[in-house]
Amino acid sequence: MIKANDPNRKSWIPVEKDSDFPIQNIPFGVFETTRGDVTIGTRIGDTAIDLAALHQLGYFEGIELPDDIFMQESLNPFISLGKPTWRAVRDKIAEIFDSNNIEIKHKAEVLHEMPSVKMKLPVEVGDYTDFYSSREHATNVGTMFRDPDNALMPNWLHIPVGYHGRASSIIPSGTPIHRPKGQTMPKDATEPVFGPCKLLDFELETAFITADGKPLGDNITTAEAEDYIFGMVLFNDWSARDIQKWEYVPLGPFLAKNFASSISSWIVTLDALEPYRTAGPTQEPKVLPYLEYEGDKNYDINLEVAIKPENTEETCVSKSNFKYLYWNMAQQLAHHTINGCNIHAGDMMGSGTISGPTPDSYGSMLEISWQGTKPVTMKDGTERKFILDNDTVIMRGYCENNGLRIGFGEVSTKVLPAK
Amino acid sequence: MIKANDPNRKSWIPVEKDSDFPIQNIPFGVFETTRGDVTIGTRIGDTAIDLAALHQLGYFEGIELPDDIFMQESLNPFISLGKPTWRAVRDKIAEIFDSNNIEIKHKAEVLHEMPSVKMKLPVEVGDYTDFYSSREHATNVGTMFRDPDNALMPNWLHIPVGYHGRASSIIPSGTPIHRPKGQTMPKDATEPVFGPCKLLDFELETAFITADGKPLGDNITTAEAEDYIFGMVLFNDWSARDIQKWEYVPLGPFLAKNFASSISSWIVTLDALEPYRTAGPTQEPKVLPYLEYEGDKNYDINLEVAIKPENTEETCVSKSNFKYLYWNMAQQLAHHTINGCNIHAGDMMGSGTISGPTPDSYGSMLEISWQGTKPVTMKDGTERKFILDNDTVIMRGYCENNGLRIGFGEVSTKVLPAK
Repeated sequence: MIKANDPNRKSWIPVEKDSDFPIQNIPFGVFETTRGDVTIGTRIGDTAIDLAALHQLGYFEGIELPDDIFMQESLNPFISLGKPTWRAVRDKIAEIFDSNNIEIKHKAEVLHEMPSVKMKLPVEVGDYTDFYSSREHATNVGTMFRDPDNALMPNWLHIPVGYHGRASSIIPSGTPIHRPKGQTMPKDATEPVFGPCKLLDFELETAFITADGKPLGDNITTAEAEDYIFGMVLFNDWSARDIQKWEYVPLGPFLAKNFASSISSWIVTLDALEPYRTAGPTQEPKVLPYLEYEGDKNYDINLEVAIKPENTEETCVSKSNFKYLYWNMAQQLAHHTINGCNIHAGDMMGSGTISGPTPDSYGSMLEISWQGTKPVTMKDGTERKFILDNDTVIMRGYCENNGLRIGFGEVSTKVLPAK
Repeated sequence: MIKANDPNRKSWIPVEKDSDFPIQNIPFGVFETTRGDVTIGTRIGDTAIDLAALHQLGYFEGIELPDDIFMQESLNPFISLGKPTWRAVRDKIAEIFDSNNIEIKHKAEVLHEMPSVKMKLPVEVGDYTDFYSSREHATNVGTMFRDPDNALMPNWLHIPVGYHGRASSIIPSGTPIHRPKGQTMPKDATEPVFGPCKLLDFELETAFITADGKPLGDNITTAEAEDYIFGMVLFNDWSARDIQKWEYVPLGPFLAKNFASSISSWIVTLDALEPYRTAGPTQEPKVLPYLEYEGDKNYDINLEVAIKPENTEETCVSKSNFKYLYWNMAQQLAHHTINGCNIHAGDMMGSGTISGPTPDSYGSMLEISWQGTKPVTMKDGTERKFILDNDTVIMRGYCENNGLRIGFGEVSTKVLPAK
């Protein structure tokens, strides 16, 4: 077992019941302290831990780490050190904060109350790819826009379909966005019009962050894939449905997606998710050999989306689960590299919208409101077909079994009116 | 007039007739010297000029430049300094190497014969976008794959259609590639198969390199666009047609494109291309106001493609011109940012395949051989429908008027067999 995952360990840092961040989580992130220092850190309970300070104080002695590895604005250099190092650092953090050990001196330099730090983007994303790996989502979209009897495209059961996205507009939780403007072709119109998007939507996704891969021309197998995955985040793949509908043929979504993509601030390592492995859906027809895999490659991660209209309480509009995904991350990465495409530390790969089997588990307003035909009533009595100005969309995710909960926190984004 | 563009200037560095690199060009690139130093440089004739050495020797006095701005592995920090600085540096270089000035001392530190230096990727590409802006190309593809009477998609005349590509696999001229492997669905088959790509193709493109743009949420107008464009390169957008055909619906090309994208090594500034501005095609129907522009925004750049089978001479298979493009770079950039998408220094935006009006000006083998129905005969007597193993594909580009030629050199890539 991975030492840091010991379910019996307690920390001398207080952790509330139902916290996403017990000492068994130890995620990685980047934050700015009240003093204005930017550092790499982790979190236990509601306490942010400055890893640069810990390292300077000598707590990581015995692990081969560059002096400035945590004094960075992104996790990329740390991720480049590879899985054995990530694991050793996580194990050491578990030991330092174990309640069986005496509390560290220098608390003032190392520990910060969460509300006082400002979370930053955890990685500098070199390339961002989005997959389309939920059968339920692809079926819903195909049913609405094409043919209910042939909802899935012919390639869908053979290929983890994916496409390239824009890295520059990936933002951390808490960063508000403006409603995008763009071209649309209204129903029955003969000429396109320009204006603010009318059908703004979220997509409930997760994303994984990669390590450095192999040289251009080589591929990563499904068996090797998990060694090249650092961890996961929650991901809201903002989508402008009306812009998308007009622009996407034949080369795929472009301006409908690249105005903003929001991720949660803490990267939860694949190691921390280990106890929550589960089997994926049966794949029939049989996949090509390069996509075959052994063992459980899905993870049981509860996901939910809430909409919070301004000045009122939020309403949960969906509860889904990562385990529903048809194509797993090992298959996605094996497919992505089978042609020799190279990957770098900090690249991000989205799951695609994660819809479950029932309407209350759909991962986008497009599906939840079924193209606007079934509005959702909020707790404040207002209705939503899509996202309105000043709404905040909040996604949460966590694993739980045997009384242990490992979570992602949230990705929360407020939508401001178009500029 | 831009001082460095003075057509009457000669350099004390020898420049052969028909060189792409007279003193009026002054492109920017990154190279490694025989001593193993990596530096930013420029080129006059067949002489590479070490700008880091020139800067250390004080030649750029009077221009505000960080000490290490040319001691970099990419041009990104230099590009971030903005257009007035690029212009001042180019003017100063023109002055230093003007034949009216005495030749510099320290030639050994500053000047290198071109064959002795190793050209590197000139920028670290943060995000790469590819457009689809040749009406002739889009019409040819639509005619082959869809309906000759409705070859253009309904959105094509309203939108500079574009999609996101993969930045990690962009490589400089001279880097060989391996034929990619992947899934394809053979004609009349019921199951996909896996193996080396059978229909490997080039796409004759150019690409522009951007400066830092505005914050996320703001847009760049067509009038502002040229201030955000550093320069241009030749671009071979390698394409695996059989992989593309099976994978691209509904989210666009993915593995068919991201195994390699080759660019020429020297970035020719937009300033250097100034004398070659020309009008673009008439746009009818009228475009939406945010895509309207004033003045000549196309450039008269001759383009050609040759295939060189191993151990024999090359055969020219296409002569096209950048000026044919329906959508210009200012419109592409205005469209890309109209939804608030942000751009960074070093981002790359491809033109899309640049096909001219006649078969001898088509920009891909798909079009030249019309889906393999019209093979092209090489000078060595062999035939090509698509690209074979050990072929080298060479693209060249240059502007010429009033006896002055400004060129890009070439992008040359050898195709090795699948691994």
